[in-house]
Amino acid sequence: MKAISLLGSTGSIGTNALRVTSSFPGAFRVVGLSGGKNVSLLADQAEKNHPEIISTGDANSCAELQALLRQRNYPMAATRFVHGIEGSIEVSCHPEVTLVLAAITGGAGLLPTYRALEAGKTIALANKEAMVMAGQLMKQKAHEKGVDIIPVDSEHNAIHQCLRGGRREEVRRLILTASGGPFRETPREQLLSVTREEALNHPTWRMGRKITIDSATLMNKGLEVIEASWFFDVPSDEVDVVIHPQSVVHSMVEFVDGSILAQLGVTDMRIPIQYALTFPERWRSPLPPLELHKLAKLEFYEPDREKFKCLDLAYRAIRRGGTAPAALNAANEVAVEAFLHDGVAFHEISEIIEAVLNSHPQHEASSLDSILKADAWAREEACRLADECRKLHGSRKH
Amino acid sequence: MKAISLLGSTGSIGTNALRVTSSFPGAFRVVGLSGGKNVSLLADQAEKNHPEIISTGDANSCAELQALLRQRNYPMAATRFVHGIEGSIEVSCHPEVTLVLAAITGGAGLLPTYRALEAGKTIALANKEAMVMAGQLMKQKAHEKGVDIIPVDSEHNAIHQCLRGGRREEVRRLILTASGGPFRETPREQLLSVTREEALNHPTWRMGRKITIDSATLMNKGLEVIEASWFFDVPSDEVDVVIHPQSVVHSMVEFVDGSILAQLGVTDMRIPIQYALTFPERWRSPLPPLELHKLAKLEFYEPDREKFKCLDLAYRAIRRGGTAPAALNAANEVAVEAFLHDGVAFHEISEIIEAVLNSHPQHEASSLDSILKADAWAREEACRLADECRKLHGSRKH
Repeated sequence: MKAISLLGSTGSIGTNALRVTSSFPGAFRVVGLSGGKNVSLLADQAEKNHPEIISTGDANSCAELQALLRQRNYPMAATRFVHGIEGSIEVSCHPEVTLVLAAITGGAGLLPTYRALEAGKTIALANKEAMVMAGQLMKQKAHEKGVDIIPVDSEHNAIHQCLRGGRREEVRRLILTASGGPFRETPREQLLSVTREEALNHPTWRMGRKITIDSATLMNKGLEVIEASWFFDVPSDEVDVVIHPQSVVHSMVEFVDGSILAQLGVTDMRIPIQYALTFPERWRSPLPPLELHKLAKLEFYEPDREKFKCLDLAYRAIRRGGTAPAALNAANEVAVEAFLHDGVAFHEISEIIEAVLNSHPQHEASSLDSILKADAWAREEACRLADECRKLHGSRKH
Repeated sequence: MKAISLLGSTGSIGTNALRVTSSFPGAFRVVGLSGGKNVSLLADQAEKNHPEIISTGDANSCAELQALLRQRNYPMAATRFVHGIEGSIEVSCHPEVTLVLAAITGGAGLLPTYRALEAGKTIALANKEAMVMAGQLMKQKAHEKGVDIIPVDSEHNAIHQCLRGGRREEVRRLILTASGGPFRETPREQLLSVTREEALNHPTWRMGRKITIDSATLMNKGLEVIEASWFFDVPSDEVDVVIHPQSVVHSMVEFVDGSILAQLGVTDMRIPIQYALTFPERWRSPLPPLELHKLAKLEFYEPDREKFKCLDLAYRAIRRGGTAPAALNAANEVAVEAFLHDGVAFHEISEIIEAVLNSHPQHEASSLDSILKADAWAREEACRLADECRKLHGSRKH
């Protein structure tokens, strides 16, 4: 039986992961759950899984959760209740745990994931931002502790599978597929006026709000280029992106002998999650198989790098190296959040990130400390720029 | 340096294989060549490769080749000249050879390939008919001698690559892709009057005449289903066929967890040949890479099993087992040859095969002898049926 902890258990990846574990009775023991403020869902998950430890976003939600569970006659004594980032770290480092699903969105996921690596846990990584910010450190730590990091992101998961078909030195390039998002066919000028609702309407995948906006700007693909570069130890100029609107081919690897291996599947995150949780084995999935002949056609295009500037910004950040990717990621998180709350316009997301990147006083990403400092600096700078955007919009309205 | 022999060196696979070996100077030594009656090409190949032994189709062509090479001041003493099936066997079993590329078309390739296995040589197998006729024996012999058989057929080569992504017991099904041939969109009634030239006009691959006709009838895919079933030890009902006109995805493997791995590449046989000759390594190919975004789209359809009866006949033969696949293959070889020489009509190819299969007195395929007997019986029966067709056509003309 695999003893696992779930960081981000109430999110899209977390809930899907619990559907996977519950479909193999007796195979997994959920030792720890870490969620945010969705107390009612956390209570349901606690009742089904009886974990040793549960962490919530803050002290208030922790108290709420305990009150709710007491009402439901949950055996309180068997579970430890914690909260905040220290709580998440306790969940990920619990001594009984061997495998941690890291599915907290954004930079907030870095510390609990990194601490789990230090504690020698295998990581199923859905939190791409952690790898973007601290790829070098995470890979070093995993190597030092002799543990695996298995990608959950469907693209990296696909590449992980395809890489089994050859040796690392036989790889010519990695090819990440991108759906192209909801604005793939929208003329560039119209991007100036797209709404939050339009941006949240992803054509093929149901996901959280932040990653859905990242898909609309193609920053998601940019972050994935950086992630792939670290994950698979391949220079970023050997990581290509191809637009593939059907999202059936999840990504590909081209080998030096001209063969390309691709992984295909239905667009259901339970497939890569299950792969990561059961690796190196493959277990029978209860999902219906992909029926290729019902798809009729698969298309592939080059991305429009003029229209989707975020992709190039990500390449620029990884080429600069050091703390630049961490700054890029922080600026993106702030800009997306501001867009989601009507503060900035869609096209201003890339403008804010570019400005932050341009003024970022770069350092080596040689310690968590320097990375977290760059992250904090970039967040502050991006907040300031977002405020300027808000003021500008306000003055235009008058 | 790998010491290799090429069976069928003057054919499409053989000439491509020599292009591959010559693109890696110092990596391969061509010890033996076995060709048919194309004496002038064999002489060129001898001059470039200086093999220890050369076999030709018969005594006449052997004498012709020697005369030609003497004219060209070839150092005759360093090469042994042999001919016929015994000659091919000498080439494949030459003591210095470690790897045999088996690329003789049709049942004629079985004996030299099987003898090479007995002599403990690794086989790069392009001769699918050998596996169709004697799959069980060949697999047993390879296992007994501890040698590999690496598939050269682009489909099986693709599957060989994809299978590296999981364990054998994790495979749900193999998915062979088929271009659909030149008659994919031809209405069924019109198949009654197609010409040899139309049938030889394959949309995506340049190949020999026999395999091109097999592609037009879909018997090629039928033979490949049988080949795949033996090659990868998977029951034939777990081998599916999907029509994919672009021939970019060369085949796929679906695993039990719902992931499909696919191999893609340009339609150039040098890629699978090189893979087979360099396995388990992948060497840098001089070919231009596949540019996915220039393809724009990939399509997948179900095959029309009413229109292309040969596919079902092949499934029927492998399900019956024993010598039935050998009989199917022999009948097909005769019927295709008769079609190529204007003896029988296109639609009569499947009719002849079906009639032979229906009247075949089946035996176990437990020895080469029983297989070769079934082969001879089916050839005779198919010749008789082809003659009947010819008579019928003749009487119609008067």
